[in-house]
Amino acid sequence: MRSKPVKGTRDFLPREAALREYMQQTIIKAYKSAGFSQIITPILEDIRNLRSSEGGDNLNLMFHILKRGDKLNAAIANEQFGDLADIGLRYDLTLPLSRYFANNSAALLLPMKCIQIGNAYRAESPQKGRYREFTQCDIDILGQASIWAEIELIITTASALASLGIGDFRVRISDRRILERLFVQLGFEPAQTPALCIIFDKLEKIGIDGIKNELLAGEFDQGACTKLLDYLQTGDRSLAGYTALVGESEYTNNIETIIQAVSKAACGQYACEFDISLVRGQGYYTGTVFEVESLQYAGSLAGGGRYDNLIGKFLGQVVPAVGFSIGFERIFDLLLAQGFVPPGERETLALFFSSDYLAAHQAALSLRGEYNVSILEKPKKLGKLLGRLQEAGYVGFAIAEEGAAITRFAP
Amino acid sequence: MRSKPVKGTRDFLPREAALREYMQQTIIKAYKSAGFSQIITPILEDIRNLRSSEGGDNLNLMFHILKRGDKLNAAIANEQFGDLADIGLRYDLTLPLSRYFANNSAALLLPMKCIQIGNAYRAESPQKGRYREFTQCDIDILGQASIWAEIELIITTASALASLGIGDFRVRISDRRILERLFVQLGFEPAQTPALCIIFDKLEKIGIDGIKNELLAGEFDQGACTKLLDYLQTGDRSLAGYTALVGESEYTNNIETIIQAVSKAACGQYACEFDISLVRGQGYYTGTVFEVESLQYAGSLAGGGRYDNLIGKFLGQVVPAVGFSIGFERIFDLLLAQGFVPPGERETLALFFSSDYLAAHQAALSLRGEYNVSILEKPKKLGKLLGRLQEAGYVGFAIAEEGAAITRFAP
Repeated sequence: MRSKPVKGTRDFLPREAALREYMQQTIIKAYKSAGFSQIITPILEDIRNLRSSEGGDNLNLMFHILKRGDKLNAAIANEQFGDLADIGLRYDLTLPLSRYFANNSAALLLPMKCIQIGNAYRAESPQKGRYREFTQCDIDILGQASIWAEIELIITTASALASLGIGDFRVRISDRRILERLFVQLGFEPAQTPALCIIFDKLEKIGIDGIKNELLAGEFDQGACTKLLDYLQTGDRSLAGYTALVGESEYTNNIETIIQAVSKAACGQYACEFDISLVRGQGYYTGTVFEVESLQYAGSLAGGGRYDNLIGKFLGQVVPAVGFSIGFERIFDLLLAQGFVPPGERETLALFFSSDYLAAHQAALSLRGEYNVSILEKPKKLGKLLGRLQEAGYVGFAIAEEGAAITRFAP
Repeated sequence: MRSKPVKGTRDFLPREAALREYMQQTIIKAYKSAGFSQIITPILEDIRNLRSSEGGDNLNLMFHILKRGDKLNAAIANEQFGDLADIGLRYDLTLPLSRYFANNSAALLLPMKCIQIGNAYRAESPQKGRYREFTQCDIDILGQASIWAEIELIITTASALASLGIGDFRVRISDRRILERLFVQLGFEPAQTPALCIIFDKLEKIGIDGIKNELLAGEFDQGACTKLLDYLQTGDRSLAGYTALVGESEYTNNIETIIQAVSKAACGQYACEFDISLVRGQGYYTGTVFEVESLQYAGSLAGGGRYDNLIGKFLGQVVPAVGFSIGFERIFDLLLAQGFVPPGERETLALFFSSDYLAAHQAALSLRGEYNVSILEKPKKLGKLLGRLQEAGYVGFAIAEEGAAITRFAP
């Protein structure tokens, strides 16, 4: 049998599991305090739902669950090898949430402000910080078209990050429609804007030269390409600069309002800035998109946006929706590397017994008012085990047959 | 798109999710207090590990994840249709734990006392109380051959159940080797004992008549069958009765010691009794098996046993191991049906604003010292929404533009 976990998945040791549990509880507390309620959706999702979800590249990374029994036999007999699966593992929490909303709409309070914490799965190529099984922590506001939903999600997510001790970040915000208008203004065909968004999304990764190569490889108007590259190299990419070039719109006004409100609520703790280079991969976003970017470490700590059309695919009517997802694994890796110790954990003692387990049990009952107490058989040589217990975070020990007095380890 | 969750899986509404969260935290607290540490293993597991795990009927219920890319194409091209999957969803937490132990043995404190709470998956036929995605809560002691491990697991699991308010139960305990000796004593072939255990396991479900039919259908010695049916109908099935018939052994002595110790620790709160009809399905059990049976509701609340050989399949050396798993979904369904309300939840208020979200945000900041506060846009007609908020568990509301004074709902 193979001892290693499946590629891209991890075993978590007690110290790591304790950090994850602490992170989850801290995030949930921050979100509940803002009136969000936790819900739970299954990890399994109908493959047809997943395939119709406009999940962008994530659809290529999906795990498929094999059909069973007669259905599997029929698919094989009919050589329908693209149809061997009827269930998939969810690649994020947004598609299941949209289905959840449609399935439970009669029971829901609107707007629905909800928390989801759970695993999602993507068959990513193995690399540092990329996992095939990973935890996502999302908050979403469903049934609210007004941009106070965006404002609230950004403020609330920032406060959750701050409560994890992750404070050194800025919020980037844009709206894909703002970018699309820029493309048209610069002379591209409106029909080409989705393809351009995909290229533009890579700006941070491949730089302006990379964008240039991708533009040349596509069938775009050369004049428009030149203008776009000029804009990227020397243009004023602030919201004011953009507006001077393309003009005001409902979308720029919304971004302006959001930035002003978030900046006031942030009280100087973090910045909220327009960033036209922000696209975000998922095809289901319909309006604002935003990210929290660490100023200390490379990359994103949280990301989200508005997806007003996804629930409509289930319900047949548009339900406005906006969500923000914390990069749980990224933050876990950061805190773990920092040696972060979750505060407020109860101290743990070892309580040894030689022959009388029940005497140790009795002694443990009273010690457990104050400590976590692990009853252990006393080995012949205690010294080596005591060292290992201290390494594992135990604060001391007692011996049941010797009155169960506590000896604390020297720090 | 389909709004219903995948067959056998469930969406959990806020009230349900809150109960599940409360249950998990209560169980974790009870287990941590007894010195157990939480670990986390992946839901995905190598299909070869799962297939070699002696999981009994659970192996037939496994979900298989399709291979990807070239591996999938090769399997199809070579018509290896039994080999389309390389990963499975775990059907319990014990096989992943055994792999975990082998993978991390250098980093582990022995004996390892661990908690696992996580989802497992079985393609059960849909019926009340049977789910295809379900949560398991296990504690295990690995690296401890002595029966104080059994005693500790039973006492600790009973205390976790009691802390959930589930107190009316008894513990049944047996050892498959005790049953096997009975079969041989009654005249069956030793080689037939595994088949007999499988039949015997159905006693509760199919009754003595059912057992009789199954025995007649098999190729068993008729004299032995008659003796076994006599024993079931009129024999003394207590431990003393068994010992008088078959004789004492290490196994009966162990059961006796465990029952005495657990009964003392139980202080009359629950009984711990020998029950020779207890078999439990998994093939990986090697010694003691035990269950917590509700006296109030049909069926089992927790089950476990000793599996000394499973880790050895990974490590190549025997590591004694024993585990106890709480029937999380069973208890969740019971508590939910009882209308159980998790104690200690913070009260939640609605805070309305008409136009100034930031004013509401400011007011919420101070209210959040005491309450969870959900900021909501004030609708034109407040009355109907207030009713729904109260139904959803809100305790009152305030209006930001009117000084944010709290109006509590009349009970």
